[in-house]
Amino acid sequence: MKSYIDCLPCLLNQALRAARAATDDEHIHRQVVDAVAEMIPTFSPHLKPPEITQQAYRVINSITGENDPFRRAKVEANNAVLAIYPKLEKMVSDSTDRLYTACKLAIAGNSIDLGPKFDYGGIDKLLDSISNSVSLAIDDYEKFTKSLDNCRKLLYLGDNAGEIVFDRLLIEEIKRYRDIEVYFVVRGKPVINDATMKDALAAGIDKVATIIPNGADAPATIISRCSPKLQTLLESADVIISKGQGNYEANDTETANIFFFLRAKCQLIAKTLGVKVGDYILKSDRE
Amino acid sequence: MKSYIDCLPCLLNQALRAARAATDDEHIHRQVVDAVAEMIPTFSPHLKPPEITQQAYRVINSITGENDPFRRAKVEANNAVLAIYPKLEKMVSDSTDRLYTACKLAIAGNSIDLGPKFDYGGIDKLLDSISNSVSLAIDDYEKFTKSLDNCRKLLYLGDNAGEIVFDRLLIEEIKRYRDIEVYFVVRGKPVINDATMKDALAAGIDKVATIIPNGADAPATIISRCSPKLQTLLESADVIISKGQGNYEANDTETANIFFFLRAKCQLIAKTLGVKVGDYILKSDRE
Repeated sequence: MKSYIDCLPCLLNQALRAARAATDDEHIHRQVVDAVAEMIPTFSPHLKPPEITQQAYRVINSITGENDPFRRAKVEANNAVLAIYPKLEKMVSDSTDRLYTACKLAIAGNSIDLGPKFDYGGIDKLLDSISNSVSLAIDDYEKFTKSLDNCRKLLYLGDNAGEIVFDRLLIEEIKRYRDIEVYFVVRGKPVINDATMKDALAAGIDKVATIIPNGADAPATIISRCSPKLQTLLESADVIISKGQGNYEANDTETANIFFFLRAKCQLIAKTLGVKVGDYILKSDRE
Repeated sequence: MKSYIDCLPCLLNQALRAARAATDDEHIHRQVVDAVAEMIPTFSPHLKPPEITQQAYRVINSITGENDPFRRAKVEANNAVLAIYPKLEKMVSDSTDRLYTACKLAIAGNSIDLGPKFDYGGIDKLLDSISNSVSLAIDDYEKFTKSLDNCRKLLYLGDNAGEIVFDRLLIEEIKRYRDIEVYFVVRGKPVINDATMKDALAAGIDKVATIIPNGADAPATIISRCSPKLQTLLESADVIISKGQGNYEANDTETANIFFFLRAKCQLIAKTLGVKVGDYILKSDRE
């Protein structure tokens, strides 16, 4: 999808948050805001939201001299979810439909996103929602399981640190459901709190999937711009799981048996999907 | 007070809302966002928030060709509150402390502000809060009544359309409390939904006070920048009531027996005042 005009003020807010994460120097915060404000008139209306964020982060990193402002936040998020991993496993094993519960948990995990201004209330509150059987506002779970029934190779487009620990659990359940080969795609370089190879290893994704960096520094894996190697893998995959809002914004017009797992974290995405902010989405790319 | 850096992304959001109020043309919306984004690096950190808004609105008006984008919203707000005026009068006359209730209503009226992104839930909800005896987070009412006891001339810095109808009721109560001469200051030109002479006349302020336009197009009456005539009046006033966030931002460092009546409508003002967003404030400029 193209960016909305509302993405522009939102980007400026995000730039300020990133600057603050990178340094306490208020002069640098102002330099970042000024520089990103100056970029705004240059953005083509055809750019996808992750593409404008990508451009902004290059400037933010260059000004702050910090190429990974949310480094600490990412480590903390991974550790926080790893600490409750046994609890998550129990939630899954206690449930009547293990895979469905793991899907819901993976969507819940998508709350851990430092891009949009979205307050999900912390991990404990998230788990409470899941325990109280949160319902999906868009629920293509049946289509998803049918797709898995014929799936040998699954490509999983990861999103954020912390969230990927929930993804690990879902991948375990997918593999328990059926013997499926899973490839887990991470960002090539740090951007926002998106997971890179390092974060994925820390989350133990390598225990359940083959991790593949996408080579890029956008806060999304943009299928149409992937390397030829990744393109080949994408084409050979029977099912793609696309996690999060950035990957949805990047790939919503693709048709490749994609299932979008996300929480709608801003008004515009919610409106596009016909849901409310905060809603849980498991959406097939096919009608 | 000086602007916070957070005021800059907020301003860009506000520019977009103003552009949408002025026209449905999306190309013009983008022109406005681009132009205000370009202005951001030029803003001195010493400017007060109403001063940066003032500069932005000049550009917004020039691009949209509309010098009063919230014209209709202002008329509607005045009419909506005038329609419930008898109900407001009854709330005051039924209460144990008429003046205190009128103060609370005047602060409630400050919710009708199209500047910050603040959702107060509509007028009915406001009145419910007041009926359920909302408490003031900062309450210098006792100081206020003591000041009124020695007051002959009161200057009232008005804020928004709609809100000024609540102000009219408070002025009636002030005059019932004691025979006080009241001057009501409005903006010299339209900006956001701030009240001008036209709006004040529509609200019937002329029935209770002498209306004085401040000659400026800032969304505040900035005491230090007033015309010599208004300065003289300010100096001769025994008490000043300053309504709203813009007037607070403009005059928080003044000492002229000012009472700030406002709701805290953004995180930064709330933090400055040591209160929560949405809180009701009646604050003296004296310790």
